[in-house]
Amino acid sequence: MPKRVDHDERRREISVALWRIASTHWLEKAGLREVETEAGMSLGQLQHYFTSKDEMLIFAMEYVGQAASERVQGRLRAMSAPPTPRTIIREILIELLPLDDNSRTGLLVQVAFFARLVHDERLQAITKGGIEPLTDLMADQLQKAMDAGEVEADRDPKIEAMNLIGLADGLANYALAGEHTAEQALAMIDYHLGRLFPPAR
Amino acid sequence: MPKRVDHDERRREISVALWRIASTHWLEKAGLREVETEAGMSLGQLQHYFTSKDEMLIFAMEYVGQAASERVQGRLRAMSAPPTPRTIIREILIELLPLDDNSRTGLLVQVAFFARLVHDERLQAITKGGIEPLTDLMADQLQKAMDAGEVEADRDPKIEAMNLIGLADGLANYALAGEHTAEQALAMIDYHLGRLFPPAR
Repeated sequence: MPKRVDHDERRREISVALWRIASTHWLEKAGLREVETEAGMSLGQLQHYFTSKDEMLIFAMEYVGQAASERVQGRLRAMSAPPTPRTIIREILIELLPLDDNSRTGLLVQVAFFARLVHDERLQAITKGGIEPLTDLMADQLQKAMDAGEVEADRDPKIEAMNLIGLADGLANYALAGEHTAEQALAMIDYHLGRLFPPAR
Repeated sequence: MPKRVDHDERRREISVALWRIASTHWLEKAGLREVETEAGMSLGQLQHYFTSKDEMLIFAMEYVGQAASERVQGRLRAMSAPPTPRTIIREILIELLPLDDNSRTGLLVQVAFFARLVHDERLQAITKGGIEPLTDLMADQLQKAMDAGEVEADRDPKIEAMNLIGLADGLANYALAGEHTAEQALAMIDYHLGRLFPPAR
């Protein structure tokens, strides 16, 4: 089905154009004309792939998440030893921080999307539950670590997972705001992980 | 100095107008004309109190922080017993969550401000260090709790304070996005505080 592949490829190209715009200035200010220019397409072509700006943003957001997930999986596969729950969790959290151009751009797309989302109940309904797969994945890893005695047995894996994401998200925002560097944010997350996975006694 | 008082009062009125706008839709979309209408002032009058939209936003943000601080202090004063470090820290964190209309509006102003801030190094330079007084205050309370044996002696009060703010900020954002309620976010923060202040043995 070459036609379908082309369609997806074009949608990805448009997403990358949105990323480029979001990484340099407010996406809110970007009109469709700017997206046309950046993606090298006419408005008619854009509308062939996306029926609204919201649909475009949602696809771009999902693509941000997918690209991040692929980067994490790539790093985990490249490791010489099978990754531990702690390593898996840390690699996911790393991707939530603006440590390199990829994750920084992804975060800036998220900021633009978020400023729109908070005032749009329809968008919230569409994206609701978006972090559940991530919290589930991390909670599973925490449960494994608890079963292996690496994490205290009275921790709540679901709450710990959501708190790790909330923490990384909050510290990432303060990094974008220039309050600390992304490396400092990672050091603070490592401190938190050090409490969650106490050294064996 | 009645003139100075009037000036400050007018700036506060303009901030409240900005809040009202931010609590219903994107502040970015609000032109100066809308601020004029909401504040009941002409553009000329607005420019008498603020020379730029950035200056207006920074003042509104500072006013958000000041109003939150006054609400915390009011609640602490109203308590029958002198508040413990844990209570003081919890009351501050409560104010960071969208649990009522006041804090929700404050957060929406922050979201609007933040979407602007990430692409504006000048704004970042002006606001840099803005969370330091808050982290210092919380770190002091944590140190007191450590001295009293309520918090483990090997915790780092500075990092714990920043992580508490990051956590509250991240969970607040997910509440604004509809992923969980503000009450659920508070329950997750209480879980975290429960680990930080373990029950006496």
